[in-house]
Amino acid sequence: MTRLKLIEQIQLKQSYLCVGLDTDIAKLPRHLQSSPNAVIDFNKAIIDATKPYCVSYKINTAFYESQGIKGWEAMQETVAYIPKTHLTIADAKRGDIGNTSAQYAKTFFELIPFDAITVAPYMGEDSIRPFLEYQDKFTIVLGLTSNAGSNDFQQLLLSPNLTEENRGRRLYEQVLEKTATWGTPDNLMFVVGATRAADLENIRSIIPEHFLLVPGVGFQGGSLEEVTRYGKNKDVGLLVNASRAIIFAGGGEDFAAEAAIIAQQYQVEMKGYLQELGIVQSHLKTY
Amino acid sequence: MTRLKLIEQIQLKQSYLCVGLDTDIAKLPRHLQSSPNAVIDFNKAIIDATKPYCVSYKINTAFYESQGIKGWEAMQETVAYIPKTHLTIADAKRGDIGNTSAQYAKTFFELIPFDAITVAPYMGEDSIRPFLEYQDKFTIVLGLTSNAGSNDFQQLLLSPNLTEENRGRRLYEQVLEKTATWGTPDNLMFVVGATRAADLENIRSIIPEHFLLVPGVGFQGGSLEEVTRYGKNKDVGLLVNASRAIIFAGGGEDFAAEAAIIAQQYQVEMKGYLQELGIVQSHLKTY
Repeated sequence: MTRLKLIEQIQLKQSYLCVGLDTDIAKLPRHLQSSPNAVIDFNKAIIDATKPYCVSYKINTAFYESQGIKGWEAMQETVAYIPKTHLTIADAKRGDIGNTSAQYAKTFFELIPFDAITVAPYMGEDSIRPFLEYQDKFTIVLGLTSNAGSNDFQQLLLSPNLTEENRGRRLYEQVLEKTATWGTPDNLMFVVGATRAADLENIRSIIPEHFLLVPGVGFQGGSLEEVTRYGKNKDVGLLVNASRAIIFAGGGEDFAAEAAIIAQQYQVEMKGYLQELGIVQSHLKTY
Repeated sequence: MTRLKLIEQIQLKQSYLCVGLDTDIAKLPRHLQSSPNAVIDFNKAIIDATKPYCVSYKINTAFYESQGIKGWEAMQETVAYIPKTHLTIADAKRGDIGNTSAQYAKTFFELIPFDAITVAPYMGEDSIRPFLEYQDKFTIVLGLTSNAGSNDFQQLLLSPNLTEENRGRRLYEQVLEKTATWGTPDNLMFVVGATRAADLENIRSIIPEHFLLVPGVGFQGGSLEEVTRYGKNKDVGLLVNASRAIIFAGGGEDFAAEAAIIAQQYQVEMKGYLQELGIVQSHLKTY
């Protein structure tokens, strides 16, 4: 999928919601648990119910790998089932030396034809480059994550000698700035778990044009309004992910309808911000 | 496998060689390529031929994932085939928020019963903690890698305010020191791609007791002597990995015999260093 098509879908649906298919088999509704195809049955029902309200689905590969071969089959079948209108993200957080990253890229861009993959930056340029070489695919690099552990290394202050400014810069800021030079907004996005206004403004000053994949606006307690107000750019430039808050909204036989209700709540709220901030209208003129 | 058992195997074999099963299907000997079970046939032959000379096998998961379900089957079968005397490492470089890392730990410690897994540190403590909770398993955290991209972030100078010393510390040094506080040498190792004496001495001053998994002593051009001299500790504390240099030593029908010759060359060289540096003898008295 191209960036332009993604933006068109956001305009069309007035939504920048990504539904996270963290399909933990232990949390499935009881009536599904005995089914031999519980994961794929669950995912198909969630996709059918939520697709009017979202523009993307993110598959957390860990929950599928832990089911072994059956899990990989479910992942393949889920990606095949997602409509071509929706950006598919392998939330795989891979990254290794060049020839190994090339194998991961082959897995998640060819063997299972995802549109995008999340990648860890610690090993640097040659670990990310093989993903960027694909046409019409997105590499989504971890910038600032939303977990407590993001303070351990991502927030470390770098030596002031590294920058022209007097203040030391933090590691994640350097990761954003440096990584942005390896790709373009057409093939590169960033995971940004920040939900505070000041952090988002700062991040947008470093990477004004890239899409941000924002987790943590759901059970992790971020504010959708603040994320939108301070994280948006002229193309919207946001994919806000919610996983458990949507897919496990209901635990009974009507789980898909419950998921749709929550997904629609997100979409309605998003539509309001898009109109309030004038992003939709001004943008439709551009394209 | 426990640390003590690993040390016993090193003493017994007078080797600290890890053979990397980066089984790239495109590089297999021609006579195997038509076999439906080429990867597992190749791996079994390599394991049979090299097991007297090594103490560990490292499976690069990327090369198996890119073969889809067949690849996962080959990975499972390979791990099952490796003798219990040899430490099995999933070179998977995983790492995500806590509940997701717990799924990866389940995959590589339970579903496929590896002894160890490599993990990326960027997301911090809660991304690594779930792996450390397993008994008799090792979490091998990326410290300093051997690729060109290691200069992009791992070598960044941190603000001097962070340390008591006057000089700024580098990111990878902080990763080593901080991560070491989350586990013990009994459940934690580090990937250290350094082959220069000064770097190794410095790393050993930060983490004197942990095992180091050292790639890059093979096709990537490091020096086994220098790694041993400056990277060893009283328990040897090293696993030196060679992948392509061993498994693709020969490209014909005698590929396994060719691999054994190279593996034995490593072992003979290692035995020499162990004796020269007096590690083997002094250590046998301790245990």
